[in-house]
Amino acid sequence: MTVVKSTLPDAAREVAGEALQSTLVDLLGISLVGKQAHWNIVGPRFRSIHLQLDEVVATARTYSDTVAERAAALGLPPDGRPETVAAAYALPGAKEGWLRDDEVVRLMVETLETAIGRLRDRIDATDKADPVTQDLLIGITAELEKQRWMFEAENWPRD
Amino acid sequence: MTVVKSTLPDAAREVAGEALQSTLVDLLGISLVGKQAHWNIVGPRFRSIHLQLDEVVATARTYSDTVAERAAALGLPPDGRPETVAAAYALPGAKEGWLRDDEVVRLMVETLETAIGRLRDRIDATDKADPVTQDLLIGITAELEKQRWMFEAENWPRD
Amino acid sequence: MTVVKSTLPDAAREVAGEALQSTLVDLLGISLVGKQAHWNIVGPRFRSIHLQLDEVVATARTYSDTVAERAAALGLPPDGRPETVAAAYALPGAKEGWLRDDEVVRLMVETLETAIGRLRDRIDATDKADPVTQDLLIGITAELEKQRWMFEAENWPRD
Amino acid sequence: MTVVKSTLPDAAREVAGEALQSTLVDLLGISLVGKQAHWNIVGPRFRSIHLQLDEVVATARTYSDTVAERAAALGLPPDGRPETVAAAYALPGAKEGWLRDDEVVRLMVETLETAIGRLRDRIDATDKADPVTQDLLIGITAELEKQRWMFEAENWPRD
Amino acid sequence: MTVVKSTLPDAAREVAGEALQSTLVDLLGISLVGKQAHWNIVGPRFRSIHLQLDEVVATARTYSDTVAERAAALGLPPDGRPETVAAAYALPGAKEGWLRDDEVVRLMVETLETAIGRLRDRIDATDKADPVTQDLLIGITAELEKQRWMFEAENWPRD
Amino acid sequence: MTVVKSTLPDAAREVAGEALQSTLVDLLGISLVGKQAHWNIVGPRFRSIHLQLDEVVATARTYSDTVAERAAALGLPPDGRPETVAAAYALPGAKEGWLRDDEVVRLMVETLETAIGRLRDRIDATDKADPVTQDLLIGITAELEKQRWMFEAENWPRD
Amino acid sequence: MTVVKSTLPDAAREVAGEALQSTLVDLLGISLVGKQAHWNIVGPRFRSIHLQLDEVVATARTYSDTVAERAAALGLPPDGRPETVAAAYALPGAKEGWLRDDEVVRLMVETLETAIGRLRDRIDATDKADPVTQDLLIGITAELEKQRWMFEAENWPRD
Amino acid sequence: MTVVKSTLPDAAREVAGEALQSTLVDLLGISLVGKQAHWNIVGPRFRSIHLQLDEVVATARTYSDTVAERAAALGLPPDGRPETVAAAYALPGAKEGWLRDDEVVRLMVETLETAIGRLRDRIDATDKADPVTQDLLIGITAELEKQRWMFEAENWPRD
Amino acid sequence: MTVVKSTLPDAAREVAGEALQSTLVDLLGISLVGKQAHWNIVGPRFRSIHLQLDEVVATARTYSDTVAERAAALGLPPDGRPETVAAAYALPGAKEGWLRDDEVVRLMVETLETAIGRLRDRIDATDKADPVTQDLLIGITAELEKQRWMFEAENWPRD
Amino acid sequence: MTVVKSTLPDAAREVAGEALQSTLVDLLGISLVGKQAHWNIVGPRFRSIHLQLDEVVATARTYSDTVAERAAALGLPPDGRPETVAAAYALPGAKEGWLRDDEVVRLMVETLETAIGRLRDRIDATDKADPVTQDLLIGITAELEKQRWMFEAENWPRD
Amino acid sequence: MTVVKSTLPDAAREVAGEALQSTLVDLLGISLVGKQAHWNIVGPRFRSIHLQLDEVVATARTYSDTVAERAAALGLPPDGRPETVAAAYALPGAKEGWLRDDEVVRLMVETLETAIGRLRDRIDATDKADPVTQDLLIGITAELEKQRWMFEAENWPRD
Amino acid sequence: MTVVKSTLPDAAREVAGEALQSTLVDLLGISLVGKQAHWNIVGPRFRSIHLQLDEVVATARTYSDTVAERAAALGLPPDGRPETVAAAYALPGAKEGWLRDDEVVRLMVETLETAIGRLRDRIDATDKADPVTQDLLIGITAELEKQRWMFEAENWPRD
Repeated sequence: MTVVKSTLPDAAREVAGEALQSTLVDLLGISLVGKQAHWNIVGPRFRSIHLQLDEVVATARTYSDTVAERAAALGLPPDGRPETVAAAYALPGAKEGWLRDDEVVRLMVETLETAIGRLRDRIDATDKADPVTQDLLIGITAELEKQRWMFEAENWPRD
Repeated sequence: MTVVKSTLPDAAREVAGEALQSTLVDLLGISLVGKQAHWNIVGPRFRSIHLQLDEVVATARTYSDTVAERAAALGLPPDGRPETVAAAYALPGAKEGWLRDDEVVRLMVETLETAIGRLRDRIDATDKADPVTQDLLIGITAELEKQRWMFEAENWPRD
Repeated sequence: MTVVKSTLPDAAREVAGEALQSTLVDLLGISLVGKQAHWNIVGPRFRSIHLQLDEVVATARTYSDTVAERAAALGLPPDGRPETVAAAYALPGAKEGWLRDDEVVRLMVETLETAIGRLRDRIDATDKADPVTQDLLIGITAELEKQRWMFEAENWPRD
Repeated sequence: MTVVKSTLPDAAREVAGEALQSTLVDLLGISLVGKQAHWNIVGPRFRSIHLQLDEVVATARTYSDTVAERAAALGLPPDGRPETVAAAYALPGAKEGWLRDDEVVRLMVETLETAIGRLRDRIDATDKADPVTQDLLIGITAELEKQRWMFEAENWPRD
Repeated sequence: MTVVKSTLPDAAREVAGEALQSTLVDLLGISLVGKQAHWNIVGPRFRSIHLQLDEVVATARTYSDTVAERAAALGLPPDGRPETVAAAYALPGAKEGWLRDDEVVRLMVETLETAIGRLRDRIDATDKADPVTQDLLIGITAELEKQRWMFEAENWPRD
Repeated sequence: MTVVKSTLPDAAREVAGEALQSTLVDLLGISLVGKQAHWNIVGPRFRSIHLQLDEVVATARTYSDTVAERAAALGLPPDGRPETVAAAYALPGAKEGWLRDDEVVRLMVETLETAIGRLRDRIDATDKADPVTQDLLIGITAELEKQRWMFEAENWPRD
Repeated sequence: MTVVKSTLPDAAREVAGEALQSTLVDLLGISLVGKQAHWNIVGPRFRSIHLQLDEVVATARTYSDTVAERAAALGLPPDGRPETVAAAYALPGAKEGWLRDDEVVRLMVETLETAIGRLRDRIDATDKADPVTQDLLIGITAELEKQRWMFEAENWPRD
Repeated sequence: MTVVKSTLPDAAREVAGEALQSTLVDLLGISLVGKQAHWNIVGPRFRSIHLQLDEVVATARTYSDTVAERAAALGLPPDGRPETVAAAYALPGAKEGWLRDDEVVRLMVETLETAIGRLRDRIDATDKADPVTQDLLIGITAELEKQRWMFEAENWPRD
Repeated sequence: MTVVKSTLPDAAREVAGEALQSTLVDLLGISLVGKQAHWNIVGPRFRSIHLQLDEVVATARTYSDTVAERAAALGLPPDGRPETVAAAYALPGAKEGWLRDDEVVRLMVETLETAIGRLRDRIDATDKADPVTQDLLIGITAELEKQRWMFEAENWPRD
Repeated sequence: MTVVKSTLPDAAREVAGEALQSTLVDLLGISLVGKQAHWNIVGPRFRSIHLQLDEVVATARTYSDTVAERAAALGLPPDGRPETVAAAYALPGAKEGWLRDDEVVRLMVETLETAIGRLRDRIDATDKADPVTQDLLIGITAELEKQRWMFEAENWPRD
Repeated sequence: MTVVKSTLPDAAREVAGEALQSTLVDLLGISLVGKQAHWNIVGPRFRSIHLQLDEVVATARTYSDTVAERAAALGLPPDGRPETVAAAYALPGAKEGWLRDDEVVRLMVETLETAIGRLRDRIDATDKADPVTQDLLIGITAELEKQRWMFEAENWPRD
Repeated sequence: MTVVKSTLPDAAREVAGEALQSTLVDLLGISLVGKQAHWNIVGPRFRSIHLQLDEVVATARTYSDTVAERAAALGLPPDGRPETVAAAYALPGAKEGWLRDDEVVRLMVETLETAIGRLRDRIDATDKADPVTQDLLIGITAELEKQRWMFEAENWPRD
């Protein structure tokens, strides 16, 4: 039985739903990994990157809420439970324990880069299905690309 | 090799460290489960509980940060990665899909009640080891007990 | 005589203009009907929905201003006079007098659903004519779909 | 059947109710006409009056809410639906299309002047019936008389 | 010996003083009873009414301060001591222990209704004696009538 | 020639106009005398009364603006020029040079008391002429009576 | 029948409950007596102490809310009704009518001193029963001891 | 007898005192004349200049306070009483009644220009006597020259 | 050697990069020209347009930052140096010296109109290359079209 | 003669007093040394640590105020005069002149570590004497341990 | 023909005008070069200096506005057009493309140092001509010297 | 070796450096002595002066930061260590223990008076050496002279 009806036809809703659910997992994962790095970073750039990571986490949390509520608005119950996030998370993760500041910078460049590649595929996929969902994914990509650049610029010269 | 030195002797640090790491997992779990309920709730009390859940999530997120940073301050790298949270989470979880408002209320009563019981054990355990950590756990318990009461009061008459 | 010149060619301006004028009427209508429900609602969910309706009204008022100013920016004088709104309003309206809370919830689901369907048609219509106008309509649709979901979730189980 | 009981005797309530319902229509009409002028004004005083009109609209919206909620508080369901506002609106209206700045100034002087005259009659009418309603009407009159003066002063020398 | 002189003649001051002192007791009583309900309410409408009661308490506290300071300004020492409030309180009170949400709604409708009736008598009584005091009582009545309506609307259908 | 037309008949306008013009002079005078005392006060209560006087001045300035704009709104140009204020000022004034704190307290009690007596006469005078002006004068009186009480209470035991 | 379940065993809950209920009465009493003094104080220190009393009242109100909600969270319905406060109040009270500033200072020193003594007994009593409740009582004591010192310092040289 | 001692030698204090007292009168006069124009202005630039005048008045009021308190700080009681301002005011004044917008602009250009000329003389006069007072006068001049320019620019083409 | 890597393929990055670099120069140019007009405007509409120009400048500055950071995020170093802006600026510029208010209005209409035409070409050019960049350009166009309308409306009747 | 009476018995007061006085000196010393480092730091981490030091100083200043006022509240006059701080300061100090950033980091790790060790002794010492003072010391320790960790993490790899 | 008259004699105005115009160009140049560095910086100190540069830009923008408006206030039209800034800019500029963090630090030290030297010459030049302009230049110098020091300290050990 | 280069020639830098270093010690001393009085004051003016002292302390802290950073900006490492402040402090100090309110007032008058005299000497000394430093000292003197006056006025009649 349908609980929340959708304003999209079934095929379009399925496309949009898949894009949103996988984006939700990516963003929740980034928020957890970003906090992990925020807490475990050591090295001379500690304070600067410790603060920068909180901006990444704030971005990821805010967008995860928007993405999940958009899925619900399309009649698709979003899934952001711990077990789902752990099982479906497909971006680079953090190793256990203290993290050197240059390791954190490289981790964030890679994690955001992978997430951006996946988002750009979803932007293509939702073009016909739902321009409203596509517009949201475009906005998230713009923000993550900005965050990625700032870690990339910090990562120079690359080791 | 020790990266961040501790201001506590080893035995005390171990006790405090275990209390903080398990509290961290509980709080991150509550923040994810609380958001899951926030997104998937349906029923005539939707708006009221939808908003209340965001207060639970905000509380859990704020305290998870304090708890993890206290672990780091004691020289113990906290672990809040997705895989750790999923593996170590020991509180009641949410089922998949839409959740009726009365189901959400019961879920939150049980989840918070279990978390409070575990926190009270840790308050006892840290009494001698580290009064600073104990004081933090007391503060978290006070807040979670208040949140639990508000769902319990909403849950009446109990079904 | 042209008073305010347009930056769009005539055909595109006409398409965009029709989309904006009809959206303006829908939004002003929603703002009036939303307030009518805000004032006349009775029943055990009074306070919760009374407050929710003010968020709908605030959204509708803000977007009606943006939409009307965009029409003016394209050289088309917008029409939001009382007689125009009454004559052109095509969404479900409110009955006279007190409204039960469940009636209000159903009314808002239907009103927003109709408005969303009309907006999606205009998103298609303006795709070639004016991507700037289209982007605005996409933003309004995202917001109204979120509002619709929250009433729909509140409306469960549907009677 | 009475839904919301009144704290006033029947006769007094009827007098207060009529005064409030007609004031509600006047204020909603002013808010729509004020926005119409806000969007369609052209001429060298565009910016100054464009901003001034938003203050009139804000005043009219705030007081329409207070007036409608006072009617409800007296047990009388207020009616602010689009069709009611259009049918009952008795103040000068705006013509279609662009409006020259001096036309807007004159329109606002006349619209507010007519509204004030009607309010002063209602102040007399409610004197015995309900001093609480009367006090609200006095407050609205003070504010509209201030707004009228500012357009009148701007309108000098009168053409 | 007169400590604070009055700007009113003796007879007028006596009338105004009685009106203010009894209003003070009513408002302090409402603030205590409103908090009692805020703490003891149980039932599915817990959160919504729990929050609404805090608005009633805030209103009652603010006006009790204004009323007491006006009495002092007229040279009459106000009396808001615990024993005075308990002895002179003439509105419906709360029973001991937990309160069901529908009981709370009915209690507030009755308490506010009784307070409003008493305020309307004082508005009449102070008409000649002191229009400044009367204007304050009119303002309090407007606010309490609005609060009463919101509980009354929530109380529908009446049991 | 009439520059700004009035919404009041001539006789009523004359009554309201006289009340407003003399109130304007009183309030501007109080604002200047209050500042004079604020700057010249000496004695052990310096800081406490220095701050209190700024509240009197802020009140007097705000109300002088409201009063003058109300006169303008009634078609009567207000006169608050230095020479007019000096010539028409009828309240107790300050002596030249430093002022002892107890002198300041007595000065303010007397100045406000005289102003209140004059305002109460104007409340009576405007009762039929213009209830909107009367309501404004009532509000000013309430505020000045509160300020007077606070100086009076500070003035005890009276010397 | 138990309405709100407790997370404490029965014996501990009883100890914590008694401590919280008597603290609630003390704090509500202080808030009423503090306001009584705020309104009735006369003398050269009027303004300074008038303002200081509002800080005491704000403290007492905020903590009374925390204390009552903690009792509810432990499954014990708090009782802050006028008749309960009047009957159970055990701190020094205010006499009727105007109060000289030095009388107020002495009254507050004594009232707070008595309240602090009672709180210190409850801190001891709850040590084993509930460290969470104890921590709250410690926080209240710190604040009241600070307030007491400020009146004590103001009370010097003691008469 | 000296009440407030000065930190300046007698001759320097006299020079600074004269500069400050005459600046005080100029600024209080500008604040009164600026408000007079704010209330009495008519014409098509009403709103724009009405608002601009309030910025002049705010500037004049703020600096009059600083100037008077600096005089007091040098041991010289400032004199800003109505009769002093009226007698000593040496800048262009406003005529009685309504003022055309272009008259207001010219009045403000002339008033500020005269005040600036007098301030520049005082800057020279206080150069040796007191660099602290001089620095304050320089700051006032900068601000008044900015205000003068804005009216001057508005006054173009000059009639 | 590549310093900051791009998430776009080379061809797409080149298209997006050209669009962003030329938009950056346009926006920095508008911010400088807008300030030039803000400082040099004379005439009866001085204040109104002086303020409006600061809104244009604020818009241009904010978007120039977003545009330049987006270029950097795509791995393309943006160029906003004085010599680059002067050499590449292709919009209408301001003449030297004072500017009459009507000249300013016409200048802004033309400058914004030219910028909008160039932006619309870039919206087309980036459609396939990078929807994220395109979305940013659409947002800038919407804002500049709104600003252009407001000057156009102020420019009526056109000379 | 006792000036401010204590709510603690003599022995307990002495213990608490010693703990508070020595904590006061430590915190004032940290605030001065932290500012010294804030001003004299040089090196590539200048800005980051310059800002971090201001957070340490803000923490030390806020807690020094709380600690001193608690001593006063217990009837013990606190001593924070320059000569006392200099004589009693027992933490590592700063050398004269410019400080390299890595020197500053090491200095802060050592200073905070020493302060924390001393605080933990005082937490033990006040356990029986005064739980209210102990709770304050626990809160300070938590904050300083957090600050120490952040410098320690920045200090890695240790030289 | 003179558009805006000056309050300074011709010779003084010329001196002040030259000082202000060249300062305007310096500040606009710093704001553009500072943003260029803000966007193009790469290296491990990216975030820290990226943020610091925005403070330099904000300072330069704010003072450029004050300087240009002061020129206008003296009757001299300021010139901040792109072509003027490019032609007259005399401070060190940025090279094209990405900038290493240490290059940015050195660039800012040199740019600010050159600007300060030029400002100190203008402070001397305006000493007799216009103390008001001189005071503004002194304020700018203080701020730029502070900014220069922070880059200089960051630049240590100098390479 | 020079760490931070100066923008001043050597002789001028030495003069400015001495003025700034001795001002720094005075201001840090005032901030410590002001807090000492804030904590230890007793007497009927306790609250009023307790609050006033915090304004003195805030002023002294803010200016000490500005003064120290200006020294650093001139290439001179400031010295604000506890031992330096204690050794170099040359203003009147506080005696140990509780301080009567009139003693505090006299202490602050004397302390500020001495500091002002020393500042005026430094204003003379830096006139040729560095007008930027001189301007800062002038600003500090203005503020301290205002603070001194307020204690002086409170000190009247002098004992």
